[in-house]
Amino acid sequence: MQAPFSTLSTFRDVLAKALGPDEAALAAAADRNRQLTKPPGALGRLEDLAIWYAGWRGDAKPQIEAPQVIVFAGNHGVCAQGVSAFPPEVTLQMVANFEHGGAAINQLSKIFDAQMDVYPLALETPTADFTVAPAMTEEEVVGALQTGWAAVASDADLLVTGEMGIGNTTSAAAVAAAVLGGLAADWAGRGTGVDDAGLARKTAVVARGLALHANSDPLEALRCLGGRELAAMAGAIAAARHHRIPVILDGFVCCAAAAVLAKAAPGALDHAVAGHLSAEGAHQRLLDALGKAPLLNLGLRLGEGSGAALAIGVLKAALACHSGMATFAEAGVSDG
Amino acid sequence: MQAPFSTLSTFRDVLAKALGPDEAALAAAADRNRQLTKPPGALGRLEDLAIWYAGWRGDAKPQIEAPQVIVFAGNHGVCAQGVSAFPPEVTLQMVANFEHGGAAINQLSKIFDAQMDVYPLALETPTADFTVAPAMTEEEVVGALQTGWAAVASDADLLVTGEMGIGNTTSAAAVAAAVLGGLAADWAGRGTGVDDAGLARKTAVVARGLALHANSDPLEALRCLGGRELAAMAGAIAAARHHRIPVILDGFVCCAAAAVLAKAAPGALDHAVAGHLSAEGAHQRLLDALGKAPLLNLGLRLGEGSGAALAIGVLKAALACHSGMATFAEAGVSDG
Repeated sequence: MQAPFSTLSTFRDVLAKALGPDEAALAAAADRNRQLTKPPGALGRLEDLAIWYAGWRGDAKPQIEAPQVIVFAGNHGVCAQGVSAFPPEVTLQMVANFEHGGAAINQLSKIFDAQMDVYPLALETPTADFTVAPAMTEEEVVGALQTGWAAVASDADLLVTGEMGIGNTTSAAAVAAAVLGGLAADWAGRGTGVDDAGLARKTAVVARGLALHANSDPLEALRCLGGRELAAMAGAIAAARHHRIPVILDGFVCCAAAAVLAKAAPGALDHAVAGHLSAEGAHQRLLDALGKAPLLNLGLRLGEGSGAALAIGVLKAALACHSGMATFAEAGVSDG
Repeated sequence: MQAPFSTLSTFRDVLAKALGPDEAALAAAADRNRQLTKPPGALGRLEDLAIWYAGWRGDAKPQIEAPQVIVFAGNHGVCAQGVSAFPPEVTLQMVANFEHGGAAINQLSKIFDAQMDVYPLALETPTADFTVAPAMTEEEVVGALQTGWAAVASDADLLVTGEMGIGNTTSAAAVAAAVLGGLAADWAGRGTGVDDAGLARKTAVVARGLALHANSDPLEALRCLGGRELAAMAGAIAAARHHRIPVILDGFVCCAAAAVLAKAAPGALDHAVAGHLSAEGAHQRLLDALGKAPLLNLGLRLGEGSGAALAIGVLKAALACHSGMATFAEAGVSDG
């Protein structure tokens, strides 16, 4: 689907015009939930999830039949500062692994019957090192937002955005700090597993980026400190809102990209739930800032969309119960 | 599969003779896990789950292809004491709902491709009211254990045991208190949703049962305070151990039944993981006593095996990653 914007300014306008859920479907789903053969509230968060999903789909009794997982990959100039435990060529190697079906996200997509698409974003041209210059030009960041927007399948009924990019937890920490406030040390974490010295280096790098690119505008923060895969995720999440496709957010990098949208337009993530709490140190802080409670907490810190893809199973289960269960009247069960 | 015991004493012998996991498969699975295309530990608990499962199946690279969900239903004489928000005829009505495919557990089983079986256990003959007499005779409790044992499919590769029985959180609270210690008030909870007066009544009923049936033997506690569905779950979990079928434990009632096994034979639940933390008040205490960390925490308190069935998705995903991912060598990815 072609993106309806060509500048950061017109992207901002698209975000501002986003519509909310279908109130009639929300009410009808809540009414149906009250009639299902279980004690009131006994399915806990599954009930809230089902009603929320029904509202966004405009259907009081929906199923999830066409989930889409999109993995965006980008390379980062800031890797020159020694912020990752892995060399930058791993980004391209992992893209090949995605394309050949060998990564964790391939297995998770398959087991939950999700379409999986991979978008390598100009891997041969890393973003600029943000300790020296803005990571991207406006043309570059808008191009990545447009790619993300266009990547969303028009017939998808659930979206997971994942990422791969050696160095991108450094980028995400810088974006989160710029957008949400706080110190570099509040947001920098161990990523794929840097040691104490690596973490200190990473924190200093984030601090230098913040000092160089002080700016209160979230989309400018994305341009100056982010990466193409972060921008593409933001574009895809915005497109999903436009098409009323519910989203499951993944871990730290995905949520940093999503935070840009939330700051640019209040309520921009109302169509999104947090799939999991990552083991990346500052993810809890990020979820708190977004006001999202994670569905899962299993210590994942892989990225790729893996934690969110795992939560597809939870969301499918919630909708299967909501739309498949008998009511007290249908089943002839006494309702207490 | 016919049960290899005919008394509580011979059941105890079966538990004592249970074997552990396949150490070679455990080691081979751990070795494989280290070679997969991800940073070490980045799949968090999914990695531990996969290795644990591989050990019990005796296969370093297994998949989950034949999960079985069994729902046992029983009626409780203690309902005469007004301990539930629902009338006892709901047990039979819900069994019909299970048989017609209308309950939550039907939808959850279907979505994770699990075989689902329902065993109503002498619903027309409730157990005795444990405030007056032992809930079951030895013949009755052994019969229920045997039914549970025989219900496990020989070709299952994962087992979930669920239950339905109006009044059974009262029974479970009494069994948990007898087996694990503590006061009636530590274990009695709101079940399907009793009010404060109902909870006070329930607590008093549990206290009376404990006073009447003081006994340090866990299998005697099951007989005097339990119910047929609790005994059947214990029998099924023991059968799964015998056949090296991993088990996902459900909520409060299932875990109370499982606690009987853990107390009767140390390590009797090594083949089991906790599927979820239920909203039933004392489930956390019960999981702590069993030394099990729940996989999910979504506020469910329905029983039927619903929380454990939801966790089938997590376990399937863990094994899909473990057995389906490429190694660094296979994918040509640099391993840091």
